[in-house]
Amino acid sequence: MTEVNPSIEFVSGFRVAGVHSGLKKNDALDMTLIFSEAPCVAAGVFTTNYMKAAPVLFDMEQLQGNKDHIRAVTINTKCANACTGDVGLANAREMARLTAEKIGCAVDEVLVMSTGVIGSQLPMDKITHGIELASASLGNNWSDAAAGIMTTDTRPKMASVKVTTPDGKTYNIAGIAKGAGMIAPNMATLLSVVVTDATLSVDTAKGVLQSASETTFNRVVVDGDMSTNDTLLLLANGLSGVTLQSPDDFTAFHEALAAVCRKLAQDIVRDGEGVTKFITLTVKGAPSPEAAHQIANTIATSPLVKTAFFGNDANWGRIVAAAGRAGIPIVPEHVKLWIAPGETEDFNLGSLLLFADGIPSGYGEEQASAIFKEASASILLDLGAGNGSATVWTCDLSHDYVSINGDYRS
Amino acid sequence: MTEVNPSIEFVSGFRVAGVHSGLKKNDALDMTLIFSEAPCVAAGVFTTNYMKAAPVLFDMEQLQGNKDHIRAVTINTKCANACTGDVGLANAREMARLTAEKIGCAVDEVLVMSTGVIGSQLPMDKITHGIELASASLGNNWSDAAAGIMTTDTRPKMASVKVTTPDGKTYNIAGIAKGAGMIAPNMATLLSVVVTDATLSVDTAKGVLQSASETTFNRVVVDGDMSTNDTLLLLANGLSGVTLQSPDDFTAFHEALAAVCRKLAQDIVRDGEGVTKFITLTVKGAPSPEAAHQIANTIATSPLVKTAFFGNDANWGRIVAAAGRAGIPIVPEHVKLWIAPGETEDFNLGSLLLFADGIPSGYGEEQASAIFKEASASILLDLGAGNGSATVWTCDLSHDYVSINGDYRS
Repeated sequence: MTEVNPSIEFVSGFRVAGVHSGLKKNDALDMTLIFSEAPCVAAGVFTTNYMKAAPVLFDMEQLQGNKDHIRAVTINTKCANACTGDVGLANAREMARLTAEKIGCAVDEVLVMSTGVIGSQLPMDKITHGIELASASLGNNWSDAAAGIMTTDTRPKMASVKVTTPDGKTYNIAGIAKGAGMIAPNMATLLSVVVTDATLSVDTAKGVLQSASETTFNRVVVDGDMSTNDTLLLLANGLSGVTLQSPDDFTAFHEALAAVCRKLAQDIVRDGEGVTKFITLTVKGAPSPEAAHQIANTIATSPLVKTAFFGNDANWGRIVAAAGRAGIPIVPEHVKLWIAPGETEDFNLGSLLLFADGIPSGYGEEQASAIFKEASASILLDLGAGNGSATVWTCDLSHDYVSINGDYRS
Repeated sequence: MTEVNPSIEFVSGFRVAGVHSGLKKNDALDMTLIFSEAPCVAAGVFTTNYMKAAPVLFDMEQLQGNKDHIRAVTINTKCANACTGDVGLANAREMARLTAEKIGCAVDEVLVMSTGVIGSQLPMDKITHGIELASASLGNNWSDAAAGIMTTDTRPKMASVKVTTPDGKTYNIAGIAKGAGMIAPNMATLLSVVVTDATLSVDTAKGVLQSASETTFNRVVVDGDMSTNDTLLLLANGLSGVTLQSPDDFTAFHEALAAVCRKLAQDIVRDGEGVTKFITLTVKGAPSPEAAHQIANTIATSPLVKTAFFGNDANWGRIVAAAGRAGIPIVPEHVKLWIAPGETEDFNLGSLLLFADGIPSGYGEEQASAIFKEASASILLDLGAGNGSATVWTCDLSHDYVSINGDYRS
């Protein structure tokens, strides 16, 4: 298992800033700029929502034309620049132009991201001010950069890995992310930028990002809502001097990237809106991995399952009921359900069998309740119908989720 | 529009009872028996959940063998008899046998329904006691019958229609239902029994029930969870002496049945767990009616949309964002979104255009908020992509929903 650092020390050639442009109240950081001294190979994974926000459409087009000399990413909070038509697209482009002007590069070398309320135009005076501030204060303060993209997140999300190659060289992979709400597993329900000073080809960057996101960002569920703005970017500037060559090099990079993405994705769940409980949910014995994932998502988005977690209620019937409505044929008599405390995939030790052979097992209600009272718990559902499996990370549904989202815009 | 009576006066030959068997605390009614003096043609629509409860499996098998001489339906609360294996099936059969013994008919003439917690066996001593009480107190107290099937419902749900035929004869259609939670639109997320004293053929009963449920019970969304126990039954005993013959007779019956089902379905939403707001949501201009329904369901189950309703927040961006992730291609520039106060399908008068041509319309925030503050509001989303339309009835997601479901079993 790759060791992941929950902070970011240094990635060669990348300089960042998180600033207060005036978008948020109370001097909170509300814009972030990520800058590379050298041109970057870049890849992106974007929301599959048909109502794509202007920055998503803009970035997709930028990356069509320029996959290997991206220099910066500018990110704002409070306004998603979604459902904003041609004016919104022009504003996204203007964000890029202002950034390019300040840092001295071409407009087509800048990507932009926005998060916040849907259906308002960007306040360009504040955006302009933020870009001026950020470009003047670029440095190594990754905590501020991570804080500058937060919305209802309660803490900044960062992760990094230092990889040492067989010949003793090192390179870094580091990422920041924001999440909290509108989190559903169909890439990439959040904003995240991952940077590396390793050298990557355009094709490698694209492939490895897609693959790593599939088993990390695409496996988290807070509320089942998918945003108009979700974007995950990977920038590689090569300034470590390390170029991936052997199959082992690629494997090591992939593992390190996935570890960074997994840490960020899990942190998004842990810091989801109103979350009090972290659930690791594994479905196995499904006809296919896709079927396992579909059942896991159905369980993870079930309001009845999520409120039971919140209430410390071992009401496992809701879990199998949700599994039964996922659209995948299952035979009740072949289904087995276990729970275990903590974050585990080992269901032999300390785990509790709740349901098997079509009937409740003879477990003790107190034992089950004790597990559901933990801050984290794990669930294993075995369908006994094949070799497909999938793990998702999810959370409970609490009063605070309702409060936060009943009152988001005020 | 057929006039629907929110209570039930009389349906020839049907006698009912709601009793306290001891399943619930505090002397609350917890079991219901519906009995017909004459054999009934019967039809059922059942949950499509693969984890079907024992009473669902039992009824499906009963109706395979006997579609035209059903005499009674026995219903219990507090225990769903789901995930209970062979013992559960034997208990469902025993419920039918005990009922048959008491009312003097054959076991294959009785149907059963259960609702409550999944994963516990029926307490047969209480069930036996309830059947004894109910069979001894059969009468015309439909309020008690409706109350005897309630779980987290706060009020009994009844509806009836008296139909006068062109030659001056009359017949009745009446139904009771329970809902409150685990309500999602894929038949039939609830328990409901509808009875009539008209004479129906087996084929007519089946067809008309399927058709009426499709546009009524299948169009309500409380939380998107589909139960293991959902069952809708139609019993027709013919004791009014009216037999449907002309096409107009069938149309009149269908309309009256749909009106009863619609009233019951809407009452389920109005009395959904923690509900403070009733939303009529129409999607039109979709490629097909199925596409319209899929988009409407995605919006209606979105936690972000539902919490915005709860918070009186006209955060319409969440509505179009949910529409965009429903899996149906839509072109943002062709989409139009209106809201209107109350329950309406007329979006010319008093309605507010929020979004069109890819951008927010120039509406006033105060006007929008005023509409979302109403106890009921209507939404019209026009995709501009075809002639498919669908209307669903849904509700908000409140603190009380979380409280009720975090603590359901205690």
